[in-house]
Amino acid sequence: MELKLEDVDDLCTGAAFLGAGGGGDPYIGGLMVKEELMAGRRIEILDPDHLPDDDLVIPTAMMGAPTVLLEKIPSGEEPILALRAVEAALGRKAAATMPTEVGGINSTIPLFVGARLGVPVVDADGQGRAFPELQMETFAIEGVAGTPLGIADEKGDFATIRTEDNHRMEWIARGITIRMGGTAYFANYPMSGAEVKRASVKHTLSLARSIGRIIRTSRREKHDPFEELEAFIATTSYGRAKRIFSGKVVDLDRQTSRGFTLGAVTIAPDSGTGAHCTITFQNENLCAKADGALLAVVPDIITVLDAETAVPITNETLRYGQRVAVVAVGVPPIMRTPAALKQFGPEAFGLEEAYVPLAG
Amino acid sequence: MELKLEDVDDLCTGAAFLGAGGGGDPYIGGLMVKEELMAGRRIEILDPDHLPDDDLVIPTAMMGAPTVLLEKIPSGEEPILALRAVEAALGRKAAATMPTEVGGINSTIPLFVGARLGVPVVDADGQGRAFPELQMETFAIEGVAGTPLGIADEKGDFATIRTEDNHRMEWIARGITIRMGGTAYFANYPMSGAEVKRASVKHTLSLARSIGRIIRTSRREKHDPFEELEAFIATTSYGRAKRIFSGKVVDLDRQTSRGFTLGAVTIAPDSGTGAHCTITFQNENLCAKADGALLAVVPDIITVLDAETAVPITNETLRYGQRVAVVAVGVPPIMRTPAALKQFGPEAFGLEEAYVPLAG
Repeated sequence: MELKLEDVDDLCTGAAFLGAGGGGDPYIGGLMVKEELMAGRRIEILDPDHLPDDDLVIPTAMMGAPTVLLEKIPSGEEPILALRAVEAALGRKAAATMPTEVGGINSTIPLFVGARLGVPVVDADGQGRAFPELQMETFAIEGVAGTPLGIADEKGDFATIRTEDNHRMEWIARGITIRMGGTAYFANYPMSGAEVKRASVKHTLSLARSIGRIIRTSRREKHDPFEELEAFIATTSYGRAKRIFSGKVVDLDRQTSRGFTLGAVTIAPDSGTGAHCTITFQNENLCAKADGALLAVVPDIITVLDAETAVPITNETLRYGQRVAVVAVGVPPIMRTPAALKQFGPEAFGLEEAYVPLAG
Repeated sequence: MELKLEDVDDLCTGAAFLGAGGGGDPYIGGLMVKEELMAGRRIEILDPDHLPDDDLVIPTAMMGAPTVLLEKIPSGEEPILALRAVEAALGRKAAATMPTEVGGINSTIPLFVGARLGVPVVDADGQGRAFPELQMETFAIEGVAGTPLGIADEKGDFATIRTEDNHRMEWIARGITIRMGGTAYFANYPMSGAEVKRASVKHTLSLARSIGRIIRTSRREKHDPFEELEAFIATTSYGRAKRIFSGKVVDLDRQTSRGFTLGAVTIAPDSGTGAHCTITFQNENLCAKADGALLAVVPDIITVLDAETAVPITNETLRYGQRVAVVAVGVPPIMRTPAALKQFGPEAFGLEEAYVPLAG
């Protein structure tokens, strides 16, 4: 399937939704992708089920604090430099690229790389949403080695990391990202087509585009976008979506620290009285509670949307006084296994809450 | 010239002297080198003037906080892994290794590498002493590219950095070092034999061995080691050494921060009254003052020695109450050019003092 210019905005909206408040605003990435298409380059979205088993696939992405991304615009060459570093370490060229995460700007980075290099982009990723750390990947859970990892910045500096431990890969790459100014671009988990089929969350670029299209068209057609989203997601492997809170942003604690955007947002109910909803985040929203009661928790997706338009609001653009709705979405079975919960369930984020899959 | 087992302790003592309080205690490195020699391996010290112009030389070293080194013993494979990473990036094998700095443990790391790999160790370095940062090299001043840089830790993790800016090389490698636990091993400034001849401080391993021998034998022969050192150094390219203070350590402020050992030591005079001497350090001693008057400043070497034996005391082993003598040593002309002072003169360390070469 070829990605068309008119698909890009929908894909970005859906990626922001799946970004769970983090993942970086896809707006900048979307602009970069549109420029490529307008310059006549093609972007081929490849169904993972059609990928030859022996093909080498090298995922590409950005990392760091989304708040920094807004002020540190990429040159466009960074993820290509990162991919080239992995190719050099392996002594082999990539036949395709793909997202490491579908949420946020990282749905768009591999599209840009695919356009520039003339290789297809696999319609799958390793997070099925956005997560803040590099070991939080279904790729890792399924035994794919994280390194060689290539990492590059807008100055043209780059580095290659080799380690057998994905937590140390994350730890060292995060240290480099901080030194590169708070954001960097990377390529890791190089794998075969057969491994992509086994270890990825499939068809998530298509999912993002569909979610974005629903938010856009329901507004135009005066349908309730929240109802439409719930109905659509019920037909996917994610299974369930639910509006868990509505109200006004009344408090916001947001810091850029340790290479992440960290904090919490508090939302007062529409009624003016009753329990407030508090959502904590490490780039992505981790846990939503009201009066101490758990509403939703990772790996389920918690996204804050504009109360009227259902346009997703990423954490770096949250502001006091915004009228918002909070939507939670369940995740596919591959993301809820005991091994998956160990990588990116509540305990992996230091939360005390047990994982309770989103109730109906 | 072949390095003999009986030379190792002298070389380490001299390296500690040239380490200017930093550079890491060469004791651990000396043990590693002695083990290699006792296992029957040879260490060839090669005069840089005899090095073929086309030979590839890859210097090897450790970096990080010397205070951490004491508790994080290297496995021995780290600097070899770092050198291999540079070889892989260049697609070429090293014909020799050499020190990046002759002061402290970094005089011994390339000896170990040379023994293990069966390649000679060039009798020269890029600092003529120890300095805390990677861009502070005569190699850099003479236009040798700092990267590809390989960096490795005791877990077998390693990374390769490419940048055209030596300050960014230092900045990124230091970030990785912190993430690797505070110490790491690296190889950088790969260069030709011709470049070594032009860009290095020559015969500094021999210098370290001679200084160590003088300290050892003057004690045995009941000569004044300080007078002997001054007389010997007057015959070298360093030109001048001088005892600038004697007394007792009465205050010590020492922290491990930003990947360095930072602080200051205060020494009360032997007489009990009069000006105290304060020496500030960033791994290495930077500036010695008494009552606000400058006694010595970088790039001149400031070393604290045991008042009786003239054995050098590195900053991580300084203790309250020690009886010490402070010796300052001038540096060779290649280290005092305007370009050299820009790299590692007082201003490079944020000091307000102008460089005043050691007075007679």
